Amino acid sequence: MPARRALLHRVPMRHPGDTSAIEALFEAGAIHPRQVVAVLGKTEGNGCVNDFTRAYAVQALSLMLGRHLGEAPESVAARVALVMSGGTEGGLSPHFLVFGIGEGAAPQPAGALAIGTAFTPDFAPEEIGRLPQMQATAAAVRAAMAAAGIAEADAVHYVQVKCPLLTSERIAAARARGRSVATEDTYHSMGLSRGASALGVALALGEVAAVPEAAIGADWSLFSGRASTSAGVELLRNEVIVLGTSPAWAGDLTIAHAVMRDAIDLPAVQAALRAAGLPGDGGQLDAAARERLVAVLAKAEPASTGLIRGQRHIMWDDSDINATRHARALVGGVIASAVGRTDLFVSGGAEHQGPDGGGPVAVIARRGDGGAARP
Amino acid sequence: MPARRALLHRVPMRHPGDTSAIEALFEAGAIHPRQVVAVLGKTEGNGCVNDFTRAYAVQALSLMLGRHLGEAPESVAARVALVMSGGTEGGLSPHFLVFGIGEGAAPQPAGALAIGTAFTPDFAPEEIGRLPQMQATAAAVRAAMAAAGIAEADAVHYVQVKCPLLTSERIAAARARGRSVATEDTYHSMGLSRGASALGVALALGEVAAVPEAAIGADWSLFSGRASTSAGVELLRNEVIVLGTSPAWAGDLTIAHAVMRDAIDLPAVQAALRAAGLPGDGGQLDAAARERLVAVLAKAEPASTGLIRGQRHIMWDDSDINATRHARALVGGVIASAVGRTDLFVSGGAEHQGPDGGGPVAVIARRGDGGAARP
Amino acid sequence: MPARRALLHRVPMRHPGDTSAIEALFEAGAIHPRQVVAVLGKTEGNGCVNDFTRAYAVQALSLMLGRHLGEAPESVAARVALVMSGGTEGGLSPHFLVFGIGEGAAPQPAGALAIGTAFTPDFAPEEIGRLPQMQATAAAVRAAMAAAGIAEADAVHYVQVKCPLLTSERIAAARARGRSVATEDTYHSMGLSRGASALGVALALGEVAAVPEAAIGADWSLFSGRASTSAGVELLRNEVIVLGTSPAWAGDLTIAHAVMRDAIDLPAVQAALRAAGLPGDGGQLDAAARERLVAVLAKAEPASTGLIRGQRHIMWDDSDINATRHARALVGGVIASAVGRTDLFVSGGAEHQGPDGGGPVAVIARRGDGGAARP
Amino acid sequence: MPARRALLHRVPMRHPGDTSAIEALFEAGAIHPRQVVAVLGKTEGNGCVNDFTRAYAVQALSLMLGRHLGEAPESVAARVALVMSGGTEGGLSPHFLVFGIGEGAAPQPAGALAIGTAFTPDFAPEEIGRLPQMQATAAAVRAAMAAAGIAEADAVHYVQVKCPLLTSERIAAARARGRSVATEDTYHSMGLSRGASALGVALALGEVAAVPEAAIGADWSLFSGRASTSAGVELLRNEVIVLGTSPAWAGDLTIAHAVMRDAIDLPAVQAALRAAGLPGDGGQLDAAARERLVAVLAKAEPASTGLIRGQRHIMWDDSDINATRHARALVGGVIASAVGRTDLFVSGGAEHQGPDGGGPVAVIARRGDGGAARP
Repeated sequence: MPARRALLHRVPMRHPGDTSAIEALFEAGAIHPRQVVAVLGKTEGNGCVNDFTRAYAVQALSLMLGRHLGEAPESVAARVALVMSGGTEGGLSPHFLVFGIGEGAAPQPAGALAIGTAFTPDFAPEEIGRLPQMQATAAAVRAAMAAAGIAEADAVHYVQVKCPLLTSERIAAARARGRSVATEDTYHSMGLSRGASALGVALALGEVAAVPEAAIGADWSLFSGRASTSAGVELLRNEVIVLGTSPAWAGDLTIAHAVMRDAIDLPAVQAALRAAGLPGDGGQLDAAARERLVAVLAKAEPASTGLIRGQRHIMWDDSDINATRHARALVGGVIASAVGRTDLFVSGGAEHQGPDGGGPVAVIARRGDGGAARP
Repeated sequence: MPARRALLHRVPMRHPGDTSAIEALFEAGAIHPRQVVAVLGKTEGNGCVNDFTRAYAVQALSLMLGRHLGEAPESVAARVALVMSGGTEGGLSPHFLVFGIGEGAAPQPAGALAIGTAFTPDFAPEEIGRLPQMQATAAAVRAAMAAAGIAEADAVHYVQVKCPLLTSERIAAARARGRSVATEDTYHSMGLSRGASALGVALALGEVAAVPEAAIGADWSLFSGRASTSAGVELLRNEVIVLGTSPAWAGDLTIAHAVMRDAIDLPAVQAALRAAGLPGDGGQLDAAARERLVAVLAKAEPASTGLIRGQRHIMWDDSDINATRHARALVGGVIASAVGRTDLFVSGGAEHQGPDGGGPVAVIARRGDGGAARP
Repeated sequence: MPARRALLHRVPMRHPGDTSAIEALFEAGAIHPRQVVAVLGKTEGNGCVNDFTRAYAVQALSLMLGRHLGEAPESVAARVALVMSGGTEGGLSPHFLVFGIGEGAAPQPAGALAIGTAFTPDFAPEEIGRLPQMQATAAAVRAAMAAAGIAEADAVHYVQVKCPLLTSERIAAARARGRSVATEDTYHSMGLSRGASALGVALALGEVAAVPEAAIGADWSLFSGRASTSAGVELLRNEVIVLGTSPAWAGDLTIAHAVMRDAIDLPAVQAALRAAGLPGDGGQLDAAARERLVAVLAKAEPASTGLIRGQRHIMWDDSDINATRHARALVGGVIASAVGRTDLFVSGGAEHQGPDGGGPVAVIARRGDGGAARP
Repeated sequence: MPARRALLHRVPMRHPGDTSAIEALFEAGAIHPRQVVAVLGKTEGNGCVNDFTRAYAVQALSLMLGRHLGEAPESVAARVALVMSGGTEGGLSPHFLVFGIGEGAAPQPAGALAIGTAFTPDFAPEEIGRLPQMQATAAAVRAAMAAAGIAEADAVHYVQVKCPLLTSERIAAARARGRSVATEDTYHSMGLSRGASALGVALALGEVAAVPEAAIGADWSLFSGRASTSAGVELLRNEVIVLGTSPAWAGDLTIAHAVMRDAIDLPAVQAALRAAGLPGDGGQLDAAARERLVAVLAKAEPASTGLIRGQRHIMWDDSDINATRHARALVGGVIASAVGRTDLFVSGGAEHQGPDGGGPVAVIARRGDGGAARP
């Protein structure tokens, strides 16, 4: 009884425009271009406003996939979720995570990695960072779960959301129709959009009950332990990728997660490793376990209190290096110390994604008991 | 039989000029100003050329100590070793380590933390970064060991050296006397001075045999696993602080070290913790063990290969953030994950201090079996 | 008939703690330590939150003046206005402007540079960034004018104000008394304090009429063309230095100003030069005119529109370099092109100081017709 | 008698991937895609090692031109010179300069802007930064002059060169063949390649006589006053664009140049403006003259002495902002003050391009006497 099988390959990039390692996967038959449903990339820009490595990588990926599929680059970008996260501070290593859907011989009764995607309708500017965005995101998460055949919220371990932001033009358009927007500060709108999206995930997964609009970007006690959201100027809708486990899927990949309560919460990282079937007790994964580790996805954000366990951090006060850059370097170091690898998908901007100063960490690993690995 | 007893207090600073927490130690009777022999400080500058937080902190410390001792600030600075290391990237927390020598009831037969200091004569510019500096440093290390009553090199676990650098004036002065200098690049002279000093430590501790001059700043296979050296414009001699253990000293403090082979070598950190009597097996020190941890001192430097365990890091290619800033954030994260604290003395510029991309890590802890704690 | 005579010396600093050029002035008899009433300094920090070069320079100046006067450093800092402005981007050269009051043989009928200082009472936290701060500043400007013997607002050409900011502690103290503050964002409070202070200057000089509280930090059409305000954590009052011209003062120094309408307004700079008696028509001051130029003081701030004369600038979008750093480099280049010197006092944070994207520029010069120059 | 006519359009970009303003030129008939021979772009990256805005813009331009011409992107990039210069610090505004060759009614007897391009053969790694690269560049400049019909070196006013650099792979390849390279430091190879290329221009234009290899990157008294060279990893040959004047060309565009002796040499900028027929005497171009100004191209580099006219600059000592970023902001301010515009092509890395701390400045303007302007 054949079943869907999630494919995931982690490959390095030499620069943000370098997609050659993905093409090598195609050539080696590891995955077929048509099977690709999403590419997450950790690029070496600053991860902030003027980080053009994200758009550059998306352009390079669209071109390359279009060339392999005989399809226009724009059409590829509209169909395949291409989510780039800028910032590889400290030891983080630039890489792509290529997700695909193939076929396996038989479903994995214990549950295997399952992938589902969904999109909200386009948002009006006045909906961004507010309840309508949150509610539409929750609906999209449910749709993506259904697409993946995941019935239980508990089986969802990571939800990546790409969401829009407000620009001066969009604000002006709303105003012309007599509508106000959540903020007139375009940079701030990124945080509100990320926050509303994360709360939408939390709502769909039952992590929060009803959320008043005033809580968005304000009440940090409300959060999702499984959402990772990022805002981009190039879209008007939310794009949702749900990763979880399902007994209807085949293959030897599995996923688990934990929530870091602060930036140096090594025990949470180790709990996620254990939950994914890796040894998470000792100090650092050994070579064999490291080999089975396919991806780590985490959020990083400096504690708003200016403190980590009572000691002052200087991330918010450094006018030379953006606070999120400090936070990625730090959390990258903490996770690398646990896993012994540095190609980790650690991204910043964690509004309502984990508690203040902490964040979700998800681990995707290959089961120790082997399993077929054909595309 | 009273014996010398090493005193060590770790206190936070709110900014580089804030010495109030040290004054609070004086007021509480934890240490007397006259007992202070050295202050190490981790300040929140960039740790690079234009980091004025180091000089600012030294000025503030000299003023404050002078006020308490009725002594001119310059005289304090000439007598007490004031070694500031800039850079608290990622989660690192600005703090002072105040070292003093007091008296204990009886020596600790198992060995207690012992401190010794020594100075080389002033160097001529043409000696900096060359064999004379290396050899004089080795002699000073031996003198500091003698001062501390440490006979065996194996009992030395950390040697802090503050060393001079070349300036345009100093180079011109050498030239006027018909002498050439090791480099005419003043920035490069910092690395050569740190490197020659570290090799001097290695020589004194038997970590290397005879070193040819050409190896300084070139042959990275030669290094000390216990040296931490930093260059400053304000001195012409090398100032040496040796930390080790001795059965002739009293008190419940002890010290141990290990060498990180790369930046994410958590097992080495845990080995150092265990060697200092702390539990270093599980993931992170628990609250009780963390309480006994007094200081962690480590060096950080990006691997010159551009790789960490075969994966590309971007530290050398980032023209917005200096490579050493990335490295401190990373190593700070790795050590914080092991100890659960962020006030760690992680400094950069690790020429000949540990292997390429790695570095020494020393741990000072209070013994689990208690011990008297009077100044 | 002897008269007060304003003294002004511009000297370089080699680093923020280097006051040796001021001591050389004392030694040469150019000015006596007791005559010093204010020191303005342009230090080479980032001019932003974690710029410790300002406090370092203030500490070094206090120490040095105290040593020369046999006075405690704190007492010097309370009496002499020490105003440091961080940021020497582009070609700007770190320097001090040492202001003093001496005696001249006879008043200058055409008017000579006159200096007056005054202080407001300490502000309660809830007054900062609001009408009370604005009104008290206006009163202090009037008091400083009276002290300087300047009757007409038109004779005032530059008003330097050092003002406080809100800290977490101050906000909490206000709250404990049941009061709200202008903002809970401590960084934002710096801008509000600078803005309220600048509007206070505008009020005193008749540049604006009554200002509603809501205009502070919001209505940029209201501004002073002669105010330069900077916020610091170390004080609770506003300190005001008024520079103008008065026929009651002696000496060959004079001052004039103009308002740059945008960052590249060379004609405004040249108008200020001409108004101060320098040739401002050609391209750049020649050597003789440059010799007579004593100081240029200007404010720089990126246009909030993101445009300079319709063309996009990237200052607000650069997450690697703070916008004010870009602006100082730019305005420094524009003024240097007019005067052929780079030791210019260009400072950032220009809320209500000149129009959006522009700012005041004041020129202090020695008259072409000579004049005595004894302290 | 029809003649070749140089076309030049300056258009803004909203981000490095935004080529819409060039497409608008095509749509408006201002220039036909097939007429385009070169695009110079000033992009908003850091202009240093990890500036990916250059490659992103080249990819976007290749894609866009390929789409309009029905040609593969790679083929466009091989034929049309696409030279991006990163860094729009201070007030500089990101923009493209689109060069084309059209046809005019009759040659301009007084001389009109003429464009010629040429390429060297690919270089072996061991030739880069050495005499062979210099000599081949000189030959290419002569070939480009011939292509443009420019007989006299004096009629050449600007030569843009894009040149290769050494990578680890290229160095290894040379070594495998038993050859050494000019430097093993890949970053340093950029400067040597730029320098050798600039000296090649100087040689072709008679600005220097025979140059010994040891002078490359060392003897700064040798330089071209008309070269602008930039190194990129994506090519192995030198690509040369010569801009000059020729009586055989039609149109109302002309070009002139001057050499700034230091970074604040406003008189040199004004001399270049005057030489191009613009009023360069007063302070700043008026609106009418500004309209006739089409492009300003200049090089910026901090003086290696650390001084500007005897006053210290901090560009080399700032470990937070790369020295070339400071220099571009400064020179951009100086030129903007002369011309009243901020879309200026100011680029860094000026080895052997103008004197130490200064650099060439070229001005392209429309003649005051009008002239036809059809593509």
